[in-house]
Amino acid sequence: MASDLRLVLIISFVSVLVFSTSSSPLPRFPRQNRARIQLFGGDRNSYQYETKYFSQQLDHFSFADLPKFSQRYLINSDHWTGASELGPIFLYCGNEGDIEWFATNSGFIWEIAPKFGALLVFPEHRYYGESMPYGSRDEAYKNATTLSYLTTEQALADFAVFVTDLKRNLSAEASPVVLFGGSYGGMLAAWMRLKYPHIAIGALASSAPILQFEDIVPPQTFYDIVSNDFKRESSTCFNTIKNSWDAIIAEGQKENGLQQLSKTFHFCRALNSTDDLSDWLDSAYSYLAMVDYPYPADFMMPLPGHPIKEVCRKIDGASSDASILERIYAGVSVYYNYTGKVGCFELDDDPHGLDGWNWQACTEMVMPMSSSQENSMFTAYDFNYSSYKEDCWNTFGVNPRPRWVTTELGGHDIETALKSFGSNIIFSNGLLDPWSGGSVLKNLSSTIVALVTEEGGHHLDLRPSTPEDPKWLVEQREAEIGLIQGWIRTYRLEKEAQFPLLKRSW
Amino acid sequence: MASDLRLVLIISFVSVLVFSTSSSPLPRFPRQNRARIQLFGGDRNSYQYETKYFSQQLDHFSFADLPKFSQRYLINSDHWTGASELGPIFLYCGNEGDIEWFATNSGFIWEIAPKFGALLVFPEHRYYGESMPYGSRDEAYKNATTLSYLTTEQALADFAVFVTDLKRNLSAEASPVVLFGGSYGGMLAAWMRLKYPHIAIGALASSAPILQFEDIVPPQTFYDIVSNDFKRESSTCFNTIKNSWDAIIAEGQKENGLQQLSKTFHFCRALNSTDDLSDWLDSAYSYLAMVDYPYPADFMMPLPGHPIKEVCRKIDGASSDASILERIYAGVSVYYNYTGKVGCFELDDDPHGLDGWNWQACTEMVMPMSSSQENSMFTAYDFNYSSYKEDCWNTFGVNPRPRWVTTELGGHDIETALKSFGSNIIFSNGLLDPWSGGSVLKNLSSTIVALVTEEGGHHLDLRPSTPEDPKWLVEQREAEIGLIQGWIRTYRLEKEAQFPLLKRSW
Repeated sequence: MASDLRLVLIISFVSVLVFSTSSSPLPRFPRQNRARIQLFGGDRNSYQYETKYFSQQLDHFSFADLPKFSQRYLINSDHWTGASELGPIFLYCGNEGDIEWFATNSGFIWEIAPKFGALLVFPEHRYYGESMPYGSRDEAYKNATTLSYLTTEQALADFAVFVTDLKRNLSAEASPVVLFGGSYGGMLAAWMRLKYPHIAIGALASSAPILQFEDIVPPQTFYDIVSNDFKRESSTCFNTIKNSWDAIIAEGQKENGLQQLSKTFHFCRALNSTDDLSDWLDSAYSYLAMVDYPYPADFMMPLPGHPIKEVCRKIDGASSDASILERIYAGVSVYYNYTGKVGCFELDDDPHGLDGWNWQACTEMVMPMSSSQENSMFTAYDFNYSSYKEDCWNTFGVNPRPRWVTTELGGHDIETALKSFGSNIIFSNGLLDPWSGGSVLKNLSSTIVALVTEEGGHHLDLRPSTPEDPKWLVEQREAEIGLIQGWIRTYRLEKEAQFPLLKRSW
Repeated sequence: MASDLRLVLIISFVSVLVFSTSSSPLPRFPRQNRARIQLFGGDRNSYQYETKYFSQQLDHFSFADLPKFSQRYLINSDHWTGASELGPIFLYCGNEGDIEWFATNSGFIWEIAPKFGALLVFPEHRYYGESMPYGSRDEAYKNATTLSYLTTEQALADFAVFVTDLKRNLSAEASPVVLFGGSYGGMLAAWMRLKYPHIAIGALASSAPILQFEDIVPPQTFYDIVSNDFKRESSTCFNTIKNSWDAIIAEGQKENGLQQLSKTFHFCRALNSTDDLSDWLDSAYSYLAMVDYPYPADFMMPLPGHPIKEVCRKIDGASSDASILERIYAGVSVYYNYTGKVGCFELDDDPHGLDGWNWQACTEMVMPMSSSQENSMFTAYDFNYSSYKEDCWNTFGVNPRPRWVTTELGGHDIETALKSFGSNIIFSNGLLDPWSGGSVLKNLSSTIVALVTEEGGHHLDLRPSTPEDPKWLVEQREAEIGLIQGWIRTYRLEKEAQFPLLKRSW
């Protein structure tokens, strides 16, 4: 990663925004990651659902005369015990991408639905997938005016309106709603529970970095955790990566250096700059830290179990005469080409130059990220808000409001704020996940609890169970199920107490 | 009150919307009430404050490129113990009117400030008083587009942004904020505490009818309480009023009937219809029920203590040959002319034909109100949403979203929703107040509590103490002070526990 480039935002697995302060003013995207979502994005066939659409208000918070839009949602009622039994509704808070991808990668919810007799709904986040205001992606993403309703608060209101209407249509007003979400979706689930306690009785917020704003956590947190994930596997591996950035620049400055780098790293076309290569590597390391799962998985890319161990094995285990760059290539190939089927790598910019998450990052979701000289295997970098803001203006014609999200949604001094306020939220985190540093890692009250696993990755608990699941993962999921059962039990007892004559079989 | 007319909304003392479904499509306003606010609106001289302005976002929930506006606020730091002592900040949630009026009529807050060492701030609600977007009232109220940002959620966000900025400027980030509000301001205080728990540690929501929406309480509630307030004083008084509506219509249908009515009721100009008279009376009875305080007060109008008793004394005590209309006039004069200085009464429509609260009523604040044949002294009337909606369209070119407020802010099944959620809200109510029927009258949890006084009126507890205060009122205020002290104490203990080295003198 070149010193003037910085991967400033990665949320979930969908988009990566790289701001260059020196070259292109447009954010660039490791296209490989995004392209593969469709290829490896989950086991579509194992989950059956209906796809439906809901006519949604574009602006919930003003009465401007705006066109409604069609919000997609997926629904499965196979196991629902129905309204008369107060059958619960499990709502996944769709995040920044195609809802089918999140739905089919959230096996946990599908697996527990029969146990709970739950109706499953997966509403899509506005401005993603098929849920486009103004009729099409091109229109929705046209400019800052059309994009201006792509905000977290509007998305939460969408969920509130959607599920209220759904319950009314099903005469299921009394059915308890439980929220689920991973990554940004987990942030939405936690915020939804806090902001709409009358809508949902509890939330499982998995890998939800709701504290990754302003000065709440140190800006180095993310890259420090990525780096630690490599260091714990092998300090030589960590050092090789740490030294590789200078090696890349040195190579790039040679005559035909870029060509040579392109060859070493098997790019289909010649690199335009060493920055492109650094971003590509940075992205791989960051994602590897997130999906450092204990068994093979293909959430983002098909990968072996403990993929960082595998990467470091390649880096450390290359023949003794291998150059530092050849070692890096061997390592990163675990990420980009584990199947061995990729002949060469593409490195295209996003053709639109605009992406939903990047807009959100340039408005509300300003997450300061630096990397430290001491603890990081990346080059030292200090987050610079001025240039961040400038890039946002150049890209979208919008000014961020970096303090708004904590004003609206909290975060500072969260322990005091929530100690006697709110209830029924699980913050689940794996400490290998670099996003865990910005999440809630200890109990805030008796009912706002943190479930933390040392060896866990990014919302691993939401993935389907496998025979290879380690004991701690099985136990984590059991704890989650137990807590959710408790929420529903308490809710039903209160309902019973209110309407003793309506006592039912639950 | 004519059968095709209905007082559908009265919140606080500022505005009254009367929809006519048969005559003018514009809402009409008992102008007397509004005009006198300035004359009798509180004891300005006894409270000193600075008037300041804050540059505020017009739309917090989109990134549309809109002009900021100047939000007025009043501030008094005479008694503040300061940031280093974690001196509390008391924030009055400004409601639908000039903030000076609310500030100078909330003596309770001023009186307890020294005891708490509190900073007092009174931010004005957007689109009221001087806090006008687009530079002026005329521009702000120009049309549905300019008015579209006059919403409750935007107002709450204003308060959140305002106080966050204020605290930062005072380096008082750690100071606890306590919210106060009466009537709609009380609704805002309660909602603010629920939606922004990280901003304020508790709320005193006085006479806050947060349940006066949709089907949560019966639509007859308001007028039934008004009627009961009269009936409890005198059933003959109640019956005289109940019979008067037909007498008014009968008189109006006579030749020169309107002229005769104008004379009987001492209007400066001849009435155009009996509806005008009915509205004028309806408004007086409703306000009398609200301000049926136990001692003389001049909040809305200068009035004696127990004004309904006084009205009924006049109605019942008129000479035995007095007609029913003469009795009514004698009674209502207590309300409109207690000082005896009014020679004749004006009955003008609002010159603008637009009013902020009416806009809010036509968008989010849809409060269904009917009156029952059985219990009400008013003519029977069923709230008709279709004609309500039509009137809103004709008046403002806007369609209400009658279900939005409960989706966004809750209300249905509030007991279950808040039993284990939220904390530190006092709902204070007097049962003489017709708005009490739409408020929270029992404890929802150990920290979301209701303080109910049988003989209390509309946010009587927020008024300054007087030597005539009955024991129950003194006790109610003591209970409020005790609860607020408890919130602050707990907050400080938690802060102490977090930062043991920073132990202070509190």
